[in-house]
Amino acid sequence: MLYSKSFIFTLREDPKVAESVSHKLLLKGSFLYMVSSGIYSYLPLGFRVLENVSNIIRKHMEASGAQELLMSALQPIEIWQKTGRDEVLSEVMFKFKDRKNRTLVLGPTHEEEVTEIVKKNVSSYKQLPRILYQIQTKFRDEVRPRFGIVRSCEFIMKDAYSFDTDEAGLAKNYDTMLSAYQAIFKDCGLNFIMTEADPGAMGGSTSHEFMVPAEIGEDVLCHCEKCDKYFKDMSNCPNCEGKLSEKRMIEVGHIFKLGTKYSAAQEALFLDKDGARKPIIMGCYGIGVSRVLSAIVETNYDDKGIIWPKSISPFDIQLVCLDEKLLSLALALGETLEKNGFKVLLDERNEPAGVKFNDAYLLGNPYIVIIGKNYANSQKIDLEIRKTRQKVSLSEEELINFLNNEYGKQS
Amino acid sequence: MLYSKSFIFTLREDPKVAESVSHKLLLKGSFLYMVSSGIYSYLPLGFRVLENVSNIIRKHMEASGAQELLMSALQPIEIWQKTGRDEVLSEVMFKFKDRKNRTLVLGPTHEEEVTEIVKKNVSSYKQLPRILYQIQTKFRDEVRPRFGIVRSCEFIMKDAYSFDTDEAGLAKNYDTMLSAYQAIFKDCGLNFIMTEADPGAMGGSTSHEFMVPAEIGEDVLCHCEKCDKYFKDMSNCPNCEGKLSEKRMIEVGHIFKLGTKYSAAQEALFLDKDGARKPIIMGCYGIGVSRVLSAIVETNYDDKGIIWPKSISPFDIQLVCLDEKLLSLALALGETLEKNGFKVLLDERNEPAGVKFNDAYLLGNPYIVIIGKNYANSQKIDLEIRKTRQKVSLSEEELINFLNNEYGKQS
Repeated sequence: MLYSKSFIFTLREDPKVAESVSHKLLLKGSFLYMVSSGIYSYLPLGFRVLENVSNIIRKHMEASGAQELLMSALQPIEIWQKTGRDEVLSEVMFKFKDRKNRTLVLGPTHEEEVTEIVKKNVSSYKQLPRILYQIQTKFRDEVRPRFGIVRSCEFIMKDAYSFDTDEAGLAKNYDTMLSAYQAIFKDCGLNFIMTEADPGAMGGSTSHEFMVPAEIGEDVLCHCEKCDKYFKDMSNCPNCEGKLSEKRMIEVGHIFKLGTKYSAAQEALFLDKDGARKPIIMGCYGIGVSRVLSAIVETNYDDKGIIWPKSISPFDIQLVCLDEKLLSLALALGETLEKNGFKVLLDERNEPAGVKFNDAYLLGNPYIVIIGKNYANSQKIDLEIRKTRQKVSLSEEELINFLNNEYGKQS
Repeated sequence: MLYSKSFIFTLREDPKVAESVSHKLLLKGSFLYMVSSGIYSYLPLGFRVLENVSNIIRKHMEASGAQELLMSALQPIEIWQKTGRDEVLSEVMFKFKDRKNRTLVLGPTHEEEVTEIVKKNVSSYKQLPRILYQIQTKFRDEVRPRFGIVRSCEFIMKDAYSFDTDEAGLAKNYDTMLSAYQAIFKDCGLNFIMTEADPGAMGGSTSHEFMVPAEIGEDVLCHCEKCDKYFKDMSNCPNCEGKLSEKRMIEVGHIFKLGTKYSAAQEALFLDKDGARKPIIMGCYGIGVSRVLSAIVETNYDDKGIIWPKSISPFDIQLVCLDEKLLSLALALGETLEKNGFKVLLDERNEPAGVKFNDAYLLGNPYIVIIGKNYANSQKIDLEIRKTRQKVSLSEEELINFLNNEYGKQS
């Protein structure tokens, strides 16, 4: 990708609307576009990052045997009336009538709809267990949209649902999902904390939250600085007895053993081996996909900009050409790197070096490769590691070996 | 994928709500789930097909230099007031107020929003041309939702937008998109007709429609049976002078030279080389992604079910095991086929052969591979081509060579 042809238009000034580091950097780096308060569009850079997160999620969901589907955003109010959540979630639901006077809801979540789908399709224990998931836009009429895509009125979620004949099956699927979640957040480069949580309005018994310690965030955990451990509702560390301090956390995932709350209310029954009709036993498993982006940026930045983890960055390499005369060499190197399987953003704009470096630091691709004086003089390519700001001069062969090694690829 | 673990639950009876062949077969084969009139969810099989179509679109859009983004579904009414389309599209727009009394619209299309985005990001001729596109859910409060996902209240579209400094640039981008559309529909296995069309409410000068001749469909063209050619508003064939008959067509794509209709109304201006501020010259390019699915099924079926084109089918091979004793052999063959890069659905259910064949025909995967008596007796695998119903008996090696050849792969 040539920078001059891209839809990357970074801002020079910090956007005034920004309420947090991630909000600021994602707007400033033209990852996001603010449509209105609490409503965002993903510009091409943001879309690339979103796809990277989605694909990590897909990989682990598929490995867990979950099957992807895509449910409707529009839902008839009637399915919500069955569980009473038309009342419980009434505050945050966008609700309106269509021309036929049907009352429709914009799905803030999909337990009711997925339960209807399974009810229509599954009737016997032979058809269980199953896990379904989707990556989809959800809608909530938030009282106070905040921090860009941390809390917005339209956001992307991965929501998975498990369906079992008994508690043992649910426990197994729950554990499978719990492991998948750990793998997903690890692959996303997130430092996360897992805690047992209160199922609250979702119903059910067990529940676990996945949280990322960050300056912003609306959940609170108690942190022991000495042991670097997190606890719930405690004042002193159970290990070292030191005083705990509160940390606001960003919740990126939440999983629940729902049991039969939804299936009983919606009569999603199956015929068991013993000939009895029983409500299907359910679990649900959510990841705030847009929120994962924010959490990554909130915990991976410096004063110059974003520092994307390798697995998430829009490009692997930002190739900066500092001399028009070296452009054909830079183009050739870009091609070589792409042939080696790297995603390259080649900055060949007619801009001062300072502008190019500022943009490279702001956008946060992991490796900055520089074709400039050093190349003209001694055919050495300068490589800067975005995270450590460490610099080395390498021959083309050394550069490719180095990058292959960093990405765990065969040379 | 094992059939017994899949979320494939075909119906034995034709669904009563079905209004067309595609509607019937997509419901019957558990590709789609009807949430309510005009509202559908894509079940895992349908999602696979949807992804195949989307990926074909992405391939050709990226090759054309278009960059993917994802715009919001929620849009403030104010951007629609700028172009007056809050009035023009008022009938089909879902419109409601949020808790802050903002009037929001569920995007029925995205010309206004993308124009705002480009207005905020582009200010100079140096930043043009650009093409942006997205694959996204759109919403229309349809008077008469029909034929399943042919005309529904929630549907998936690919919408692309080009931005140029002059008419010559627009003409070039328009031609690029036109060629990409031809390639996309060809790759989707569609027999399509391209005609010049009236830009209508979209505004602008030139416009082309891409239509698929089908029993259902809401557009009409005049067809000469003898020459097999289509014309607009004619009674006799201009070639052979024979009488033309009307054909209802499914519109799958529509492209427009918009000119400055939106950029002028929304003041999306750029500073040209000559120092003058001018409105950006736009084009827009839509594909009804969900509708493409319907059009494919409407034109690729027989009395047994769907006949998916190879590029679109959820699986390449439906591997039918007719004898429990041969299951381990079927599993091994399935693995070999998957290692060779084929997507395999292995039907190992404890069901009669008739049920398995009916489902294989209904689901419409291109190749049915049978492990049964013939295998037990002579180690021959039976292969049936779904489209032609042609049958051959092959050794494992011959089977793989045959399939590699069919898919244009190296053995």
